Amino acid sequence: MSEADAPLRRVLEPLRPEMERVEEALRRELEHENPFLDDLLGHSRKLQGKRLRPLLLLYCARILGGVLDLHVALGAVVELLHSATLVHDDVLDEAERRRGEKALHRVWGNEASILLGDYLFAKAYSLCARLHLREANLILARTVEEMCVGELSQIATKFDFAIDEEQYLRVIGQKTASLFGAACRLGAVGHAADPEAVEALARYGTCLGTAFQIVDDCLDLEGDERVAGKSLGTDLAKGKLTLPVIQLLRQSPPEERRRLEEMLAGTDGVEERRSLVLRLVRERGFLRRSFEQAEEWIRRGKVSLGRVRDSLYVDNLRVLADYVLHRRA
Amino acid sequence: MSEADAPLRRVLEPLRPEMERVEEALRRELEHENPFLDDLLGHSRKLQGKRLRPLLLLYCARILGGVLDLHVALGAVVELLHSATLVHDDVLDEAERRRGEKALHRVWGNEASILLGDYLFAKAYSLCARLHLREANLILARTVEEMCVGELSQIATKFDFAIDEEQYLRVIGQKTASLFGAACRLGAVGHAADPEAVEALARYGTCLGTAFQIVDDCLDLEGDERVAGKSLGTDLAKGKLTLPVIQLLRQSPPEERRRLEEMLAGTDGVEERRSLVLRLVRERGFLRRSFEQAEEWIRRGKVSLGRVRDSLYVDNLRVLADYVLHRRA
Repeated sequence: MSEADAPLRRVLEPLRPEMERVEEALRRELEHENPFLDDLLGHSRKLQGKRLRPLLLLYCARILGGVLDLHVALGAVVELLHSATLVHDDVLDEAERRRGEKALHRVWGNEASILLGDYLFAKAYSLCARLHLREANLILARTVEEMCVGELSQIATKFDFAIDEEQYLRVIGQKTASLFGAACRLGAVGHAADPEAVEALARYGTCLGTAFQIVDDCLDLEGDERVAGKSLGTDLAKGKLTLPVIQLLRQSPPEERRRLEEMLAGTDGVEERRSLVLRLVRERGFLRRSFEQAEEWIRRGKVSLGRVRDSLYVDNLRVLADYVLHRRA
Repeated sequence: MSEADAPLRRVLEPLRPEMERVEEALRRELEHENPFLDDLLGHSRKLQGKRLRPLLLLYCARILGGVLDLHVALGAVVELLHSATLVHDDVLDEAERRRGEKALHRVWGNEASILLGDYLFAKAYSLCARLHLREANLILARTVEEMCVGELSQIATKFDFAIDEEQYLRVIGQKTASLFGAACRLGAVGHAADPEAVEALARYGTCLGTAFQIVDDCLDLEGDERVAGKSLGTDLAKGKLTLPVIQLLRQSPPEERRRLEEMLAGTDGVEERRSLVLRLVRERGFLRRSFEQAEEWIRRGKVSLGRVRDSLYVDNLRVLADYVLHRRA
């Protein structure tokens, strides 16, 4: 972790032993007696992400009554799910790098990656099913369905220059924020928690996830691959319009907009295109405005936290929210 | 359905109303308000397969106590799951056709196909989770995990000419027979069925699935694409060794085996290779021997049925077993 990750370390500290148990659960799930599969899973084991989703889950569990064994398992479930989507995303995006390593499909090929993604989804469901928690099974199934709808809607609007902010927000709500919200909601499983507190935390999670994706999309434009540890610029290359670009198009005069759309629809000069678009969205303030929108989502998330009884843990969720906004990777 | 499908029609008849309800459930699950997703799902709706897995499930339910609403839903679950694997398989195999139509990824691209496969998996889990049946969730999760392990093991042994019959049978047991067995087992959910009868039916399903895959692999070599309605020859092209080819290699003298392996490892002349291998496995009796092995699995499946109280329905499962052996598509 870098200097910028100091707030994340601070948030992690009070639940370090519980997060260690999530890691152990993940390691157990990511082992296999079949040597090929174990090698493949070994690649996944190396990809240490920030574990934001299990962290959120454990925090919500702690706030709503305490971290039970089932929450540790559910923490592993949401991370497995997230890993599954990353593996498939990288195949779709033809990404080169992920979490500082070569992307899995670059080492093992698309076939193995598609199947490994399927396997990780299956592990998530299977670990969840073994807990025999009706509510958790439902949340998980509904969330994966929503994430897939979001991803598919995104595919449907590739190179669609008419897409507006509302559609953009709906898609990121489905593909990203839904899992953040679900992680919070899963923290309530097993506790007779106040429904209002659960809704407030879920709402916080959804806001956090929305801000996370807006920032992610901005970093895809202006971030540094060495810092991010993953391939950037894939949104433009794949024709996925993100918030600053949508605003740029909508605020440009017709003739300029037409030229911009032509340029975005082109297939060559990926790096040049990224620099040009970056310069325009910077100069005209759209990048700043996107960050401000992310900030606004973070603000809403914090407002939602106001409906939960205050504690060190709730306070740390505020720190986590600010971290999501200011992260560079 | 063709003339060869007459036995299937006969088996279908006594459960036609229940199978109609499975179709309705499938249609409901394969609709979506998002027009792009609905179009994509429309392609899936058109792909009318033989519905062997739901049929098996309903038969087992009928034998063990009756077809309940939950079995109709579970019938849709296993078919959704099967469809999900077909969509991903066709991307992996770079197949051109499926169920008489252009393969989905040929029309919509790999990205949409990978995501649609994920979505169909999610729909299967979600429909199952909504039933709140502990046992069904567990069976489903375990089975998908096993299917993925089978598919991954197959990838691991592509162009591995040392693979033997035992490994081949293990892989098809995981990737194919497990879902046939699970379909039978799911027929017992909701009934206080005699455990011995459930095991006997699950064993029958596994044998049927094993025979099904052996026949499928033989048809991939010698079948007619127009009859099969899907791309054939993909196993050889993708370096997947199937039973007749494994036997051919193991029974050839060292020098000839070396030449055969070289030819199989080559990348050009896919059709020529298929003709040559087909001629060899035919002339030397390996194709016949593979069908005999499938026949032996069908025999074992029928023996297992002997442990279930006889009825018209059990008798029809015998007809279904013979159909699996003699089908040409």
